[in-house]
Amino acid sequence: MGIVVQKYGGSSVADAQGIKRVAQRIVKTRKAGHDVVVVVSAMGDTTDELRDLAEQVTPLPPPRELDMLLTAGERISMALVAMAIAQLGHKAQSFTGSQAGVITDSSHGKAKIIDISPGRIEAAIADGSIAIVAGFQGVSQDTKDVTTLGRGASDTTAVALAAALGADVCEIYSDVDGVFTADPRIVPTARKLDRVSTEEMLEMAASGAKILHLRCVEYARRYDMPVHVRSSFSEKEGTWILPDHSKESAMEQAIIAGVAHDRSEAKITVVGVPDKVGEAARIFEALSAAEVNIDMVVQNVSAAATGRTDISFTLPREDGQGAMTALARLQDEVGYDKLLYDDQVGKVSLIGAGMRSHPGITAKFFAALASAGVNIEMISTSEIRISVIVDEAQIDTAVRATHTAFDLDADEVEAVVYGGTGR
Amino acid sequence: MGIVVQKYGGSSVADAQGIKRVAQRIVKTRKAGHDVVVVVSAMGDTTDELRDLAEQVTPLPPPRELDMLLTAGERISMALVAMAIAQLGHKAQSFTGSQAGVITDSSHGKAKIIDISPGRIEAAIADGSIAIVAGFQGVSQDTKDVTTLGRGASDTTAVALAAALGADVCEIYSDVDGVFTADPRIVPTARKLDRVSTEEMLEMAASGAKILHLRCVEYARRYDMPVHVRSSFSEKEGTWILPDHSKESAMEQAIIAGVAHDRSEAKITVVGVPDKVGEAARIFEALSAAEVNIDMVVQNVSAAATGRTDISFTLPREDGQGAMTALARLQDEVGYDKLLYDDQVGKVSLIGAGMRSHPGITAKFFAALASAGVNIEMISTSEIRISVIVDEAQIDTAVRATHTAFDLDADEVEAVVYGGTGR
Repeated sequence: MGIVVQKYGGSSVADAQGIKRVAQRIVKTRKAGHDVVVVVSAMGDTTDELRDLAEQVTPLPPPRELDMLLTAGERISMALVAMAIAQLGHKAQSFTGSQAGVITDSSHGKAKIIDISPGRIEAAIADGSIAIVAGFQGVSQDTKDVTTLGRGASDTTAVALAAALGADVCEIYSDVDGVFTADPRIVPTARKLDRVSTEEMLEMAASGAKILHLRCVEYARRYDMPVHVRSSFSEKEGTWILPDHSKESAMEQAIIAGVAHDRSEAKITVVGVPDKVGEAARIFEALSAAEVNIDMVVQNVSAAATGRTDISFTLPREDGQGAMTALARLQDEVGYDKLLYDDQVGKVSLIGAGMRSHPGITAKFFAALASAGVNIEMISTSEIRISVIVDEAQIDTAVRATHTAFDLDADEVEAVVYGGTGR
Repeated sequence: MGIVVQKYGGSSVADAQGIKRVAQRIVKTRKAGHDVVVVVSAMGDTTDELRDLAEQVTPLPPPRELDMLLTAGERISMALVAMAIAQLGHKAQSFTGSQAGVITDSSHGKAKIIDISPGRIEAAIADGSIAIVAGFQGVSQDTKDVTTLGRGASDTTAVALAAALGADVCEIYSDVDGVFTADPRIVPTARKLDRVSTEEMLEMAASGAKILHLRCVEYARRYDMPVHVRSSFSEKEGTWILPDHSKESAMEQAIIAGVAHDRSEAKITVVGVPDKVGEAARIFEALSAAEVNIDMVVQNVSAAATGRTDISFTLPREDGQGAMTALARLQDEVGYDKLLYDDQVGKVSLIGAGMRSHPGITAKFFAALASAGVNIEMISTSEIRISVIVDEAQIDTAVRATHTAFDLDADEVEAVVYGGTGR
């Protein structure tokens, strides 16, 4: 009979009908005896429409004002959800991020949560109300300005709020049934996972799985908050994301949780870097100064004859322009030969906490890719993840071959996507 | 070089183009050396669209949540105006009603301003910024909930804020050129007034002139704030609303300021009320308890034979149902014969501070109506206003006849309406 935090994405509250359906589910949870706190995203494509409006006014909106604009989206959806609950005869009150005590830093558009002071939410619960909270937004500690936490960050609001309230569980509702062993659009036989460890989910989110926001999973891990990812369009159980030390999750732990892929990366190669101490450091310092996020790095063995080496790394495509500009400025100083830019690449990752204790996973992965004719361009590994960079055109082939090689295929097609594409 | 407060209505900021045009006008005022504080309404029909959304969810939205929903409208427009100003190279910051320190009571949907603590606005101005403030909204003193001040109340926000900031002037921009001697849609030869006293404007607003919100004029009068009503679509001077004691306004005072009309009233007649002490009081107490706003009242001379009298009064049509219900409950107690309800009536008012010192105005007014074949059903007067209730079908005729009789007609048509119909 504790607190349940539920988060509903944009496709679940896309119109009046969706809002009423969501309200019924919320009331059902309330009637089951739980205190309910709900986090909502903006309706459907509202956020994108507001962005378009801003673009019509100026190509470079001041970040403070863009945040003020975008936060109108959740204000609309949360008020409507509260109204729909009242229509069902239950007390509901909506709260902005600021009213809910979501205190952030001042980085408009990508603010980080510093603290949550949910006094008003607790008071609303104590008063018997269902509290509806705007996702995605907060208020800056220093300037008391309205901030947003970045795209998809309503998940993060929900888990952080659940942690601050000491909730029993954080339920994340979207238009898919849960976390799958691979993207069902690529692998129709992908299976829904009943349970996945927070650690695995973290690697999956970082490897391109879009079901949960990376920062949300980091929060769940830091605060040991159980997260239940499920569909608002069905009553089925979804996927439980449980702390790694949980016995339940350990007992049934499969070797491999799933295969993730990412089409958002590009690869840059700095050709002919003099093989001297400090040259690589200088390159990465310049990239860091340009705020480029590096993912994987490979440095070839130096060719003895020339005393030169090649350094390749991957990065988000959106940082490509900035990285190339920063590196071009370094050419005279470092004395490299040339820069190569390739955004026709993709990353395929195999994730599973079980691989810690099972040798031979890497060999099996690479063999599956080789049999499917997929060429590996770069490799990186963590304790529970192996990632490879391949030609973008071969991503689907690589994901399917890997999925099959590790016996992840279901007997029949399970995945259903109910609503739109957004969350 | 003092502070200028400018208020732009919904038709002035209806789209990106309108917002850019408004931004240019704001920047022009800034460049002229003024500190500028801007109050904006929601874009175009946004508020009505949000109301429709609420209606799709529930026929009876909780007032607190309806206010939360509706305030999203100004949030959008104010952020876009701030962006458009930034695009022109000037600093701008937008503020919600709450951030601007608009403290209200807790009457959601029709909250009254209790106090304005514009600390953040003053800080923004001191920092060289143009402050953009959401009209129509505030925050309740007791519960810290978001409130709205009622339809058209952005004008009130502007004048109240101007008073709190000690501004030199409050400019109210809409899509009409100013205050006219009559509604130009009825009287095409209506003249724009260059000046009108606050007192006259108050009577005009109370008599149905829609150019300014009644509470806004009350604020202007209480705080002696000069208000300049003008069009955002042209550079022309509009109408100055100046305190009554101002020499400027007194010197050029015309006898008659204008003719106003109101189609929003209904008339109720209580037939056959026993002519005893206290019966009328009982009727009006019941109406007061039902929160019905009475406007004009007429009690017929009692017919000696029957010892009974008729009481007629006018009220807003929207209060009609409530009034009839409250009166029907009284029938046995009071012992009146029957109730008559008539919403096919209208009010025509002649307003002018000059009529104080000019006798014969009433006679001239009634003679004009008689010549035009208009029958007068009820009469009420103040020191600077005469109002009559007439058949609704005769309102236009009555307004035109009065306008001509008092020599208010211009030689040619002056009035231009630039944008939509809303403000």
